[in-house]
Amino acid sequence: LESNELQDLLVALEDRVRLLEDKLAIQQILNSWGPAVDSGNSEAAAALFAEDGFVQTDRSHMGGPSGVSEMVEGDGHQALIRQGCAHIQGFPILRVDGDRADATGYSRVYLHSEDGWKVFRCSANHWQFRRTNNGWKVTSRQNHVIDGRPEALAILGSAFAENPHTDS
Amino acid sequence: LESNELQDLLVALEDRVRLLEDKLAIQQILNSWGPAVDSGNSEAAAALFAEDGFVQTDRSHMGGPSGVSEMVEGDGHQALIRQGCAHIQGFPILRVDGDRADATGYSRVYLHSEDGWKVFRCSANHWQFRRTNNGWKVTSRQNHVIDGRPEALAILGSAFAENPHTDS
Amino acid sequence: LESNELQDLLVALEDRVRLLEDKLAIQQILNSWGPAVDSGNSEAAAALFAEDGFVQTDRSHMGGPSGVSEMVEGDGHQALIRQGCAHIQGFPILRVDGDRADATGYSRVYLHSEDGWKVFRCSANHWQFRRTNNGWKVTSRQNHVIDGRPEALAILGSAFAENPHTDS
Repeated sequence: LESNELQDLLVALEDRVRLLEDKLAIQQILNSWGPAVDSGNSEAAAALFAEDGFVQTDRSHMGGPSGVSEMVEGDGHQALIRQGCAHIQGFPILRVDGDRADATGYSRVYLHSEDGWKVFRCSANHWQFRRTNNGWKVTSRQNHVIDGRPEALAILGSAFAENPHTDS
Repeated sequence: LESNELQDLLVALEDRVRLLEDKLAIQQILNSWGPAVDSGNSEAAAALFAEDGFVQTDRSHMGGPSGVSEMVEGDGHQALIRQGCAHIQGFPILRVDGDRADATGYSRVYLHSEDGWKVFRCSANHWQFRRTNNGWKVTSRQNHVIDGRPEALAILGSAFAENPHTDS
Repeated sequence: LESNELQDLLVALEDRVRLLEDKLAIQQILNSWGPAVDSGNSEAAAALFAEDGFVQTDRSHMGGPSGVSEMVEGDGHQALIRQGCAHIQGFPILRVDGDRADATGYSRVYLHSEDGWKVFRCSANHWQFRRTNNGWKVTSRQNHVIDGRPEALAILGSAFAENPHTDS
């Protein structure tokens, strides 16, 4: 092959490598959430989010890094840490489209009790991400408990929709 | 290096990238099973399987995409969805060999109840896959609950056998 | 581009591919622990460890491959296998630095009982790895149960420290 043809092949291969790197980087964000909040590291938890990022659950809204930090440092969460809590993400369905990405999957909160650990929450999650100058950041996380409610079913089903970026 | 030497290196590197892509693609199939069946999306669940693919559990057999679809739409599974169920795969041992692949790992079904979520099933799984014109598809999934029965032990132990493709 | 420039680009891309391969290889070690110990395959469990590798939990110490093998073949663990046990790793925070690597994340032991499966243990883990002539091997695994004890919090928090290689 000519040099310019080799260069084209190399550039195409680099794009494929970047996509793999992006997927692992986004996965690392999800993997970091639990260790950050379960160890009370509010700074590390906040750093996962874009300035305009948010978490929306059935019962609460956290706005931006500061909202996440306040949740981690709040009395309710600190009580969970003292009791022993583990926020564990399942391996999600990942989609990357240039500088945007999303992930759909499960999370569970295990809580220590006198006779072992209970599954305190089991939820459906839709995460959205944006590539920034500081790497990938969370722009939104929608979280609904899986107890038959339609919001959780809608999140899980949205993984198979054509257009992944539907959250406002 | 000469152009033909560079080309050889590039082709070898592309093979390594393809293997990484294959592993992530197969993992995505496993990650898709739960969201598909837990949201009642029978079409998405069926689309994971090859025409001759099947699921074999301790109690049931689903043959092909149509068998999977019937299970999802059946009364038993629909009752689980209304109650709130989460079919979550563990991250498995993955092996890719050209256009065939297999995965050995765990799955759990969490079920909502009045006091949190119960671990309704915890199982050992052996998945096999084939590369098709429509991407990787499941050709077989063997699933046995982990309650001391030898079938589950055999599945988990088979991950360390020389020849991964032992299911018929 | 000139041939030497293409060669430089190719070498740089190969480094990126190797890092991705390393991350998946290390993940496979974690994914292999459960199937090895839950099927009683003491040889496969031992083979994951370097000669000087060890496991340190709140209650036990296993030294080297032989220590791991003894644990798997011991009466206590064999009783768990007969009852039905599943040692499942969460997807961890992974860091690779040349020929060293570490992983921080969760593990759970599910145990079969008359009414489903109980979460028998939920733990924080810090794994360290070394690249050897036989591939990546575990040099240390620190494991502490998540019940509010500071050792578990320290493990989870260490994932965000600058220097990942702090275990002796």
